[in-house]
Amino acid sequence: MKVENNTLKQIGEKLAKADSVLLFPHIQMDGDALGSSAALCRAMRNAGKEAFILIEDDVPEYLSFLDNGYCTKDQDCIREPDICICIDCGEVSRFPERQQTFFRGKTTICVDHHTTSQPFADYNYIDGGIAATAEIIYAILAAMDIPIDKEIGEAIFTGISTDTGNFQYSNATKESHLITASLYDAGIDHAHIAVELYQNTRLEKIRITSKILDTLEVFADGKAAIAYVTQDMLAQVGAKLEETEGVVETLRNIKGVEIAAFVKEREETLIKVSMRAKTSGNVAEIAAQFGGGGHVKAAGCTFRKELEDACLQLKEAIKKSLEKAEA
Amino acid sequence: MKVENNTLKQIGEKLAKADSVLLFPHIQMDGDALGSSAALCRAMRNAGKEAFILIEDDVPEYLSFLDNGYCTKDQDCIREPDICICIDCGEVSRFPERQQTFFRGKTTICVDHHTTSQPFADYNYIDGGIAATAEIIYAILAAMDIPIDKEIGEAIFTGISTDTGNFQYSNATKESHLITASLYDAGIDHAHIAVELYQNTRLEKIRITSKILDTLEVFADGKAAIAYVTQDMLAQVGAKLEETEGVVETLRNIKGVEIAAFVKEREETLIKVSMRAKTSGNVAEIAAQFGGGGHVKAAGCTFRKELEDACLQLKEAIKKSLEKAEA
Repeated sequence: MKVENNTLKQIGEKLAKADSVLLFPHIQMDGDALGSSAALCRAMRNAGKEAFILIEDDVPEYLSFLDNGYCTKDQDCIREPDICICIDCGEVSRFPERQQTFFRGKTTICVDHHTTSQPFADYNYIDGGIAATAEIIYAILAAMDIPIDKEIGEAIFTGISTDTGNFQYSNATKESHLITASLYDAGIDHAHIAVELYQNTRLEKIRITSKILDTLEVFADGKAAIAYVTQDMLAQVGAKLEETEGVVETLRNIKGVEIAAFVKEREETLIKVSMRAKTSGNVAEIAAQFGGGGHVKAAGCTFRKELEDACLQLKEAIKKSLEKAEA
Repeated sequence: MKVENNTLKQIGEKLAKADSVLLFPHIQMDGDALGSSAALCRAMRNAGKEAFILIEDDVPEYLSFLDNGYCTKDQDCIREPDICICIDCGEVSRFPERQQTFFRGKTTICVDHHTTSQPFADYNYIDGGIAATAEIIYAILAAMDIPIDKEIGEAIFTGISTDTGNFQYSNATKESHLITASLYDAGIDHAHIAVELYQNTRLEKIRITSKILDTLEVFADGKAAIAYVTQDMLAQVGAKLEETEGVVETLRNIKGVEIAAFVKEREETLIKVSMRAKTSGNVAEIAAQFGGGGHVKAAGCTFRKELEDACLQLKEAIKKSLEKAEA
C-alpha cells in the first residue's frame, strides 16, 4: 500500500521553513480534498506564512463553509511559492490546469491516501491505508507542533467524516476515531458541520431523486436494481446531473439487491453508468465488458447508444454475472 | 442532568455476584436499546451466568443480527432472576407488559441516558449527558473487568452509531469516539454493521418515499416544507406506515427550509404530524397549538379531521410561527 515515502517530520520541517505555501486540492473537490487543504492553509497562516488554496473549478456549495478566504483561481496569487503541495490527489491529471504552477514551487510535496497514486513531487507521503488525507494533515501538524484550533479541527473533521461516510465505510479505522476524539478538544461543533454538509439539499435534488426512483426496476429475482435519469427529466425539475449523486447507493441499499446500476443520459447517445455491488457481486467485471472499469464494489462504464438499448444490454450482463456467481 | 446515581462499580459488583440476569430493553426497541441489551447479555453469558433479554414486541428486522439467541417473550424464562435490569428505558411505561416480571427481580437496576428518566429501581445509573446507553454498558463492563469480544463490541458500536446518527448528532461526544476506537481492538467489523443497519431497505420503503416526495410542497418563501402520506398510498405500494420514518428529516434537509412537517393519515380522520426545525425554528410551540408537544427541534401533534383540513391548519400555523420569529 505504501510507496517510497518521506517522513512526516521531513515534510513538517520543509513546511516550517517556508514563507509561502500554495495548496492544490484535486478537481471536483470533495470534503476531504477541501477540508484537508483548508486545515493546512489555516494552520500555515496561523504560523505567519502566506498561504492560498489554488483551485480551477468552483467550490461546491455544500463545502463553501470551509473556504474562509483561502481559495483563489489566480495562478499568480503567490509569484514564487516556496512550497507547492498537492492534497488528496496523487496524479497530475487531477489538477490539469494547474500543473505548470505546481511545478513552479521551489519544493513540491504530495500528500494523499489513494492507492493509485504515483510519487511525482520532491517530497511524498502517500498511504492507501489511511481513511482520509485529513488524517495525514493532522499528523503533519502534530509533527510540526502546530496547535489545532476550532477551524482547523472542523476542516479535518469534514475530511474524515465525509471520506468515511460518517465512519461507516470499511476504510474507517481506530485512528480515525482517535483523531476525531482529539478534535473535540479543539472545540469542534460537529453537529454544525453535519448541518452544513447534509441539511442543505437543493429542492431540485429531492425532485429529481423522486423522479428517478419512479423508474426503478428490480430484476434477477430481486438481486439487481436499475434506474435511470434522462436530460428531459432533469430539465423538468431544473436539476443538474451531479445532483443525482447518491442514487446508486440508494439502489444498492435495497434489501436483497446485490448489484445496482444507475444509468445517466449525458447526451442523447452518451450514456454513463454507475454500478455498485453490496457483498459478493463484482461490478468491475461487468463494467469491463463495456470498456469501463473501477473497483469490485464500485465501477462504471459508458455506452454510445440510446438509453433504452444501454439498459437492455446492461441488464443482460448483470443477470449473467449474478448467474455465474451463483453457479 | 444527573439524578441520584449509584456508581458503575456498585452496579458492576451486583451483576458480578448474580447467577441470573434478565434484561429489559424498551418497547419499539432501537439500535441502542437492543445493542446495549445484547452486549450485556452476551457479556453475562460469557461470565457463566444465565441471561436473557425479555421483550414484548418483535425485534425489528434491521436489528435481527444482534439477537444471537438472547431475546425471548417467555416471561418465565428465568423463574427467579437475581437481577432484572432495564436498559435504555427510564420509565416503567416503556416496558408496560413486563413490569410485573421486572419487579420480580431480587435486585432491580436501571441504566439509561434519557433525561426524562426517574429512578424507580434499586440501583440506578441515569445520565442524560451520555450519547448512548451502550456507552454506559461499556463503562460497566470496564468496571467489572469483563473483556469486550467482537460480538459485544459490535453490539455496543450499534448502540453508539445509531443513537448518534453515525456521530453526526449533537449528542455525540469525545467519549463516543474514544469508546468506538477501543472497540476496534475487539475486532469489530463496523462496515458489516453498516450493511446490516442501512443496506437492507425494503423496496416498498423506497416506493412509498418516492410517492410521498411527489406530494412535497415548499411554502412560506421556501422556509417551510410539507408532505403527506395516505392509507391509499401505502396500500398502493404495500408499505407500512413505520416505513415512512426518516421522511421528515429529508424535508428538513432541504436548503432554506427551516420548518418541515410530515402529515400521516393513520385512519381517515386520525392524522399524525411529525415536525422538525433546522436551526432557529420552534416546532414544539406549533405542536402545542394543536395539543401536541415535543422538543424545540422535533415535535408532533394529532388532528381528528380529514388530512386536507389538517394540512391547511398546519400550514397557517407554520407560516405564522415563521413570521413571528422574523419579526
